[in-house]
Amino acid sequence: MDRSASRMPTRSDSDWGEWPLAKLFRPRAIAVVGATSKPGKVGRIVFDLLRRTERPVYPVHPTQKTLLGHDVIPRVEDLPEGVDVAVITVNAGQAVQAAADCGHKGIPFIIVVAGGFSEVGAEGRILEDKLRAVVATTGSRILGPNSLGIFVPRERIDTIFVEHGDRALAGGGGVAFITQSGSVGTEGLGVASNIGFGLRAFVGLGNKVDLNELDFLRYFGDDDRTNCIMLYMENFSDGRAFLEIAGQVSRKKPVVVLKAGRTAAGAAAASSHTGRLAGSDRVVSGAFRQFCIQRVFDEEQLCDAARVLAGAPLPRGPRVAVISSGGGYGVMAADYIESRRQRTRLQMAHLSPDTEAKLRAIVPGFASVANPVDLTASATDEMTGDTLRIVTADDGVDAVICVALFAPPGISDALVAHTAAVAADVDKPIVVVGQFGPFTDGLLRRFYDNGVIGYPCVARAVRAVRTLVERAEFVHTMEGTP
Amino acid sequence: MDRSASRMPTRSDSDWGEWPLAKLFRPRAIAVVGATSKPGKVGRIVFDLLRRTERPVYPVHPTQKTLLGHDVIPRVEDLPEGVDVAVITVNAGQAVQAAADCGHKGIPFIIVVAGGFSEVGAEGRILEDKLRAVVATTGSRILGPNSLGIFVPRERIDTIFVEHGDRALAGGGGVAFITQSGSVGTEGLGVASNIGFGLRAFVGLGNKVDLNELDFLRYFGDDDRTNCIMLYMENFSDGRAFLEIAGQVSRKKPVVVLKAGRTAAGAAAASSHTGRLAGSDRVVSGAFRQFCIQRVFDEEQLCDAARVLAGAPLPRGPRVAVISSGGGYGVMAADYIESRRQRTRLQMAHLSPDTEAKLRAIVPGFASVANPVDLTASATDEMTGDTLRIVTADDGVDAVICVALFAPPGISDALVAHTAAVAADVDKPIVVVGQFGPFTDGLLRRFYDNGVIGYPCVARAVRAVRTLVERAEFVHTMEGTP
Repeated sequence: MDRSASRMPTRSDSDWGEWPLAKLFRPRAIAVVGATSKPGKVGRIVFDLLRRTERPVYPVHPTQKTLLGHDVIPRVEDLPEGVDVAVITVNAGQAVQAAADCGHKGIPFIIVVAGGFSEVGAEGRILEDKLRAVVATTGSRILGPNSLGIFVPRERIDTIFVEHGDRALAGGGGVAFITQSGSVGTEGLGVASNIGFGLRAFVGLGNKVDLNELDFLRYFGDDDRTNCIMLYMENFSDGRAFLEIAGQVSRKKPVVVLKAGRTAAGAAAASSHTGRLAGSDRVVSGAFRQFCIQRVFDEEQLCDAARVLAGAPLPRGPRVAVISSGGGYGVMAADYIESRRQRTRLQMAHLSPDTEAKLRAIVPGFASVANPVDLTASATDEMTGDTLRIVTADDGVDAVICVALFAPPGISDALVAHTAAVAADVDKPIVVVGQFGPFTDGLLRRFYDNGVIGYPCVARAVRAVRTLVERAEFVHTMEGTP
Repeated sequence: MDRSASRMPTRSDSDWGEWPLAKLFRPRAIAVVGATSKPGKVGRIVFDLLRRTERPVYPVHPTQKTLLGHDVIPRVEDLPEGVDVAVITVNAGQAVQAAADCGHKGIPFIIVVAGGFSEVGAEGRILEDKLRAVVATTGSRILGPNSLGIFVPRERIDTIFVEHGDRALAGGGGVAFITQSGSVGTEGLGVASNIGFGLRAFVGLGNKVDLNELDFLRYFGDDDRTNCIMLYMENFSDGRAFLEIAGQVSRKKPVVVLKAGRTAAGAAAASSHTGRLAGSDRVVSGAFRQFCIQRVFDEEQLCDAARVLAGAPLPRGPRVAVISSGGGYGVMAADYIESRRQRTRLQMAHLSPDTEAKLRAIVPGFASVANPVDLTASATDEMTGDTLRIVTADDGVDAVICVALFAPPGISDALVAHTAAVAADVDKPIVVVGQFGPFTDGLLRRFYDNGVIGYPCVARAVRAVRTLVERAEFVHTMEGTP
């Protein structure tokens, strides 16, 4: 059964495809230029991280002889054949020559980690022009500079030299994350990974002297293992092309974009941060909708949207049922669902008389069987599971929010399994609100590991359902247009 | 220095004051009617919890002889003198007689925990009438029924028989929380306590046959140890009186209200949940503002608002400076600050040339010293602390948001101490955004324990500053009116 909001992989021997970027994400071998044994140095951290992958990883350094048991190669030209990616970890001043060496060696992809380029002014812009010249003269492609590089859990390729949620994300998943800000990429994702997040690949765009969001959007659009693409952008290399390509990709899988710099102050800040001018926000907003691109406004919304789009089936309509063991949560959820301030409208589902009768037979007399269903603190794991099954079977229900409180004495960890069993059987989204003091994140993570998307508060759960309904509306619109 | 958004306690021998409710929150002795040795029973859990307090706690049960080493008292009439609170843990059918017994014994406060009253229909309403008769004939006051009772960390009094964040909240604090929903009370607070929350007292209103929000609002309004009052309400016992009393209390300390049931669907759900009709939402919203009551819309917003109002000084104006080590966060914060969709307007502060010159002297050449200040990944603990000190000293800055990312190599746990040192010295609010994967909550908790309020995402931090500015505007308005 299709458990994903987007079309799932159809090629069983799924690969990175024949797209030119394939070698970046699945290289035969990798070189780390500037690898060093000095603890804390970027060249050391990156080399250390890359040793986890099963392919050869070569350290390159002019004077160092061995590094963590590997023979160090003194010059780029001495590298063996088969190196598809070179990660350049030296500083800006040295990086240009190193990139040129890699280009002349014929290494197809070069990642330049160092900052100190156009974002710091005129001198840096000159250095970037030199990097562009490397691309023009050698045909090698450059990611960066000022980029954290890539993180591909499935391939155990990780060049992110700062702390990030790598252990929590190691299991991999379907979301490709393209980000123009390294920190928003790693930190936002790190927090999201606490409650479960399935990452296909992370790409830090950096200053985009060559490879940009369009290249990666196209690539992940065609990648069968990617079922959702999320982007954090401060400016677009080519706004018109972005809309057209994202619009095309959106026909295949959801595209969620956080376009920062939407106010004058934010745009000025973005300009300072990346050395470019940001586009007009009003234009961006209208165009996104026209091209079926889903828009979000902060790092939490971005990650929240991607995890539900990648992990839950799409609803057929906007009618939401709410189940809780705490009446107040049902009231708050109903308020958010019926709120008219949102562009994408949701509505509280009307449960059929048949559904209400079935519920009446299994819940306590003082429970409420109208939507929002309130099982009261007498709720049990089994009662909640049965209620979920009955409610999702109602033809008038398109999506269900299940408030999983663990305080009622009849509720135990088994609630996760009961919920997951229903979610596995039905083709409607079930989104959990989970709250249990210090155990909240751990419980949401267990829901996630069992295929159920959950959030630690009502507002985020309702927003997630709204994200799904918006996607469903976009899909419906696109099906009606060529 | 006044570290609080509201006026801090002035009486050094602060007590619960002379208000009639004093004995409820600081009783000489407590009785638990229905205390039993059966594990999992409410009577057992409540008795167990109350043993933590230093005052006498008497178990009352008709047949049981001893309980956890205490002699059990067979009948209410056999209780010794000095019992100021009786917690009735038996079911609805037996609770009425037990309450009558307590009334006749002259116990001033009776908490009825059981559900099964007006919220379940006509029969329950008859039982509630009988409880009202107890109040009328004996003069005892009743909290409940269908109430979780009270939790007063400072007095180690806790009757909440379901799991809640009691350990995290045990340190106590200045926020009084009055809630009409037990689950929203305990679960929302439990999650909030993960990142630090200072609780003066929790009160579960239940069905309000006697004591209601007005009683507690008046009480905490006069209580010197309470510096912020938060309420979760589904309906008001007397809307007009609520506004007037809350408006009066708001002159002394912030009052934050989550009025659930604001849409037709939510109101219908609230009616089912509590057996009462909810008020018109439009009326509520306008009136709140008129009476300087701060409104929020979900459990996360409620707790977020209370913790910043209780823990940060008020800003003198709406001008916010942002400091980060990740430029993207500065951009997002600027966008939220300048957003024109909010009723309470914030603006990005313009740093003075003097401030920018001072910053330039301590930050890397490629850092941005205009607001939002971007220290880049070269930030260190000391640099961040110095930047914070310089920025807060700028007369054009009313509040500072400091994005505390822990990925940069120069940032360590010492950042908490650096930030706290500045916060202790200045009379402007400093709100932290902290993100560090699985360590996020723990770090925010450490900030909190050191007197600094923090949130795990940009949106919530900006919202917290907006809450402070709204309060400051209310205070300004009230100072101009008698």
